Amino acid sequence: MNIINSDETLDDLQLNGIYVIQKKNGFRFGVDAVLLANFANVKRNARVIDLCSGTGIIPFIIAGKTEAKKIIGIEIQEDMVEMAKRSVEYNKLNEKMEFIHGDLKDIELLKNIERAEVVTVNPPYKLQNSGIKNIEDKNAIARHEILCTLEDVIIACRTVLKDNGRMFMVHRPDRLVDIFTLMRKHRIEPKRVRMVHPYEGKAPNIVLIEGQRDGGKFLKWEPPLNVHTNNGEYTDEIMKMYNSHKV
Amino acid sequence: MNIINSDETLDDLQLNGIYVIQKKNGFRFGVDAVLLANFANVKRNARVIDLCSGTGIIPFIIAGKTEAKKIIGIEIQEDMVEMAKRSVEYNKLNEKMEFIHGDLKDIELLKNIERAEVVTVNPPYKLQNSGIKNIEDKNAIARHEILCTLEDVIIACRTVLKDNGRMFMVHRPDRLVDIFTLMRKHRIEPKRVRMVHPYEGKAPNIVLIEGQRDGGKFLKWEPPLNVHTNNGEYTDEIMKMYNSHKV
Repeated sequence: MNIINSDETLDDLQLNGIYVIQKKNGFRFGVDAVLLANFANVKRNARVIDLCSGTGIIPFIIAGKTEAKKIIGIEIQEDMVEMAKRSVEYNKLNEKMEFIHGDLKDIELLKNIERAEVVTVNPPYKLQNSGIKNIEDKNAIARHEILCTLEDVIIACRTVLKDNGRMFMVHRPDRLVDIFTLMRKHRIEPKRVRMVHPYEGKAPNIVLIEGQRDGGKFLKWEPPLNVHTNNGEYTDEIMKMYNSHKV
Repeated sequence: MNIINSDETLDDLQLNGIYVIQKKNGFRFGVDAVLLANFANVKRNARVIDLCSGTGIIPFIIAGKTEAKKIIGIEIQEDMVEMAKRSVEYNKLNEKMEFIHGDLKDIELLKNIERAEVVTVNPPYKLQNSGIKNIEDKNAIARHEILCTLEDVIIACRTVLKDNGRMFMVHRPDRLVDIFTLMRKHRIEPKRVRMVHPYEGKAPNIVLIEGQRDGGKFLKWEPPLNVHTNNGEYTDEIMKMYNSHKV
């Protein structure tokens, strides 16, 4: 069996020698995944579950930068799971990492997985009806709420989290009312928010949220994270994230 | 009758010649009120109601900078209402402005007031149990949820707003989960948010929120508003607000 197919690339994360397989012309990971993997607090020996895992970029960054004991990715698109599994094999991380093909709406499936201290998720962030051309398109499935809604994602987070476990999500600021109301509805209290701005002084276009299962009410706001300086270069903070795992 | 008492000051807002009476040693308006009065969109001929009005600073700034037809302030502390009424008289704004002594929890009182296109509110922003020494202290009443809760405030906003009318509120970022969930519960949809940062690059410590009665779901985030430069001076944007009404 070939580990890498001819329509794929093997990308060096520059992070403890970890590589990840991606399609040349398919869905490729972006800044959201890198921001989320850096926002998540993963303690030594933690169990981590990544939902909407795609080709597994967030689990691989977490494997490279933390001392998590076990990292499990769950993804509904079978070909992506198959690629992620080959990346596990290539990196010889079989003892630490696992990818499961499944639907996060399948609560019975989730209940059969040992619960985790940490859940990460980079869900589809656009509403289903917002300008989709082809609902079978893999990019559309990753970006629009076609196969799961925000509420499905939050229910799944609660289901797989241990008591007082933490979820970390990347999303869009224009959905923050939905995010806060659904998190509180399903008793995952928002505890920490960081707004990400494309340039210093511009409106935020990405939001990072930490929630705690059955956590008490107190929301901490972090300083803004600017992606670019006003000269168009990456800011030092972003450079620091990317220097340890090139995209 | 003296218009200004010996324990009071008459402060020039430097805004169309408007002055406001304040206690020398009592509750004096701060940056929150100025930020909120500048955040609110008040169209020509609009009817405006200001809740938790105190000595009326927000109504007086709105009177000075907009072409509102009528501005009504409602305040539970009788001596503050009496001071606001003297300020109306001093400024000869009796036709345009009115102050009512009343409790915003008194829904019958609110229903007897003609509804408004715009509601502004700078409510007490701390929870009742967070470190109060004297619950009769006027500063404590203005700052802590002693006489009304956030939910009381939002219910009052809905009661006095016309269909599709807008509310504008200044509050603290750590309460934003409560704010969004209560606004949505009482069908005032959050439409626009601006975070206010004490210094560029620091975490926000004030939030400005616009909501619409029965509005559709879409939340716009504004660019951050920084109060001070890193040299400790006011930023140009703040200077522009204060140049038209000195505090």
